[in-house]
Amino acid sequence: MSVLIVGSTALDSIKTPKAENPRLLGGSASHAAVAASFFSPVKLIGVVGGDFPRKYIGLYRRHKIDLAGLQILPGKTFHWSGEYELNMNNRRTLLTELGVFENFTPHLPDAHKASPFVLLANIAPALQHHVLDQMLRPRFVVADTMDLWLNIALADLLKLLPRLDGFVLNDNEAHQLTKEDNLFAALEKIHRLGPKYVIIKKGSHGSILSGPRGFFICPAYPLHRVVDPTGAGDSFVGGMMGFLATARGSIDANIRRAMIYGSVTASFCCEGFGLTRTTKTKRTDIEKRVKELEKLTKF
Amino acid sequence: MSVLIVGSTALDSIKTPKAENPRLLGGSASHAAVAASFFSPVKLIGVVGGDFPRKYIGLYRRHKIDLAGLQILPGKTFHWSGEYELNMNNRRTLLTELGVFENFTPHLPDAHKASPFVLLANIAPALQHHVLDQMLRPRFVVADTMDLWLNIALADLLKLLPRLDGFVLNDNEAHQLTKEDNLFAALEKIHRLGPKYVIIKKGSHGSILSGPRGFFICPAYPLHRVVDPTGAGDSFVGGMMGFLATARGSIDANIRRAMIYGSVTASFCCEGFGLTRTTKTKRTDIEKRVKELEKLTKF
Repeated sequence: MSVLIVGSTALDSIKTPKAENPRLLGGSASHAAVAASFFSPVKLIGVVGGDFPRKYIGLYRRHKIDLAGLQILPGKTFHWSGEYELNMNNRRTLLTELGVFENFTPHLPDAHKASPFVLLANIAPALQHHVLDQMLRPRFVVADTMDLWLNIALADLLKLLPRLDGFVLNDNEAHQLTKEDNLFAALEKIHRLGPKYVIIKKGSHGSILSGPRGFFICPAYPLHRVVDPTGAGDSFVGGMMGFLATARGSIDANIRRAMIYGSVTASFCCEGFGLTRTTKTKRTDIEKRVKELEKLTKF
Repeated sequence: MSVLIVGSTALDSIKTPKAENPRLLGGSASHAAVAASFFSPVKLIGVVGGDFPRKYIGLYRRHKIDLAGLQILPGKTFHWSGEYELNMNNRRTLLTELGVFENFTPHLPDAHKASPFVLLANIAPALQHHVLDQMLRPRFVVADTMDLWLNIALADLLKLLPRLDGFVLNDNEAHQLTKEDNLFAALEKIHRLGPKYVIIKKGSHGSILSGPRGFFICPAYPLHRVVDPTGAGDSFVGGMMGFLATARGSIDANIRRAMIYGSVTASFCCEGFGLTRTTKTKRTDIEKRVKELEKLTKF
């Protein structure tokens, strides 16, 4: 089955202590879509400007991403510029130029409205609502978010949560949302806000699922070198949704393994700037790391 | 087989935002010894003053801890006082009174010198050396440490590392020791300093082993409420060594499971002040959580 993914489609200029890479393909939807494409057909919903490089359209196409829902409007593509500190955990935004993203109204082609799996990648909650409003009874809806929306669009986000099957956020965001320091206490509170599945991302510490079958402690793949973690969270949730969309059986039976596939896909993302490493990855590379993770957690 | 454990034996006065508990039994050796006692006979090496409450001697005895190596000297027992912040991760020391600990010279009774398993719990590296100097060919020697010794006794610590089979430290200490931000790169560097097994403790994020059979990603048991994390790291390494000392087969074959038992023992430690929860724990409680951790990591 296919995954419909909405989110940002952007150009990222990323500075690290060691290098500078201008105008890479980025945005939550780009990372999530490429990650999901290893497992399932993907339908992308987004917007770019007239300046969007044709090579990036080619990149989406090589990953067989359906672009019927990608609007190309006169104006500039959303451009984000950020800088990482040496430890690759702290990043600061240098520049945000919204461009055509400022007035983005996601519009679903009719053929997309029946997509069974929907990933509302990180984007304003109002736009996540707007996509859901156009869907016909999707089977499994997951949303990702970020601290910005907790700060400036909390009411929209709180209204979104009951409409979701799964909600993904990082540990700091979970603390911010619930005012709970303890992660497992925070998870309980987030369930009460709506979602049946809650996943907390913890970067290099892995992730935690809380769902009907209890918790799952999902490891991160051990990386000796992190080049650029931008998009790792999007790759994680994209890979997870892509895997889930093609797995046979119930969500409950597959979601843990889906998280492992997401975790491994995210590990490739971290090994290059933007999507440069991810796009060179083959399904067999992913399977190899999944097998390694199985060994690394066995006792 | 038995485990010989040297470290601090102290009285801890612990303040948290919610409570204050004066003069609890504490110290790295106390926590490690009680944790190890669930699995193996333990020989404790330490020093206390004349003010050491008799009830704590009783507590050691109830855990069948051999006290032939516990010196009781005229003077005051080492007293540490600390305060935790709301999130239970940041702690600051309010007071350190070394008392009889200031001139502690660990002295091993002859019967202890052939102990096959040795845990040099957190204590000055010079004292860890002094214990090793008295041992006859132990089978497996592990040392724990803390940032203090990296700051004031680094030369002693670096001389200790080649004498160890295993070395345990937390993630911040690993970064401090190696100047490496990446944990897996840090692990490589630490191996080059001597130890065959290196374990990085990451608090609620679990721990990572690097050894001859590669990495092991060891989860922490999910706790909904952390009352007092003091001694959790000591309990982890104590439980691990206790388990290893009685497990049949090679270290390699058992160390992962031993870490899981250590992790679970540490989870009980966190649920009460000082050793109050640990001492109420039964072996069956530990086995139950080990089974749960098996389920929580399966995919």
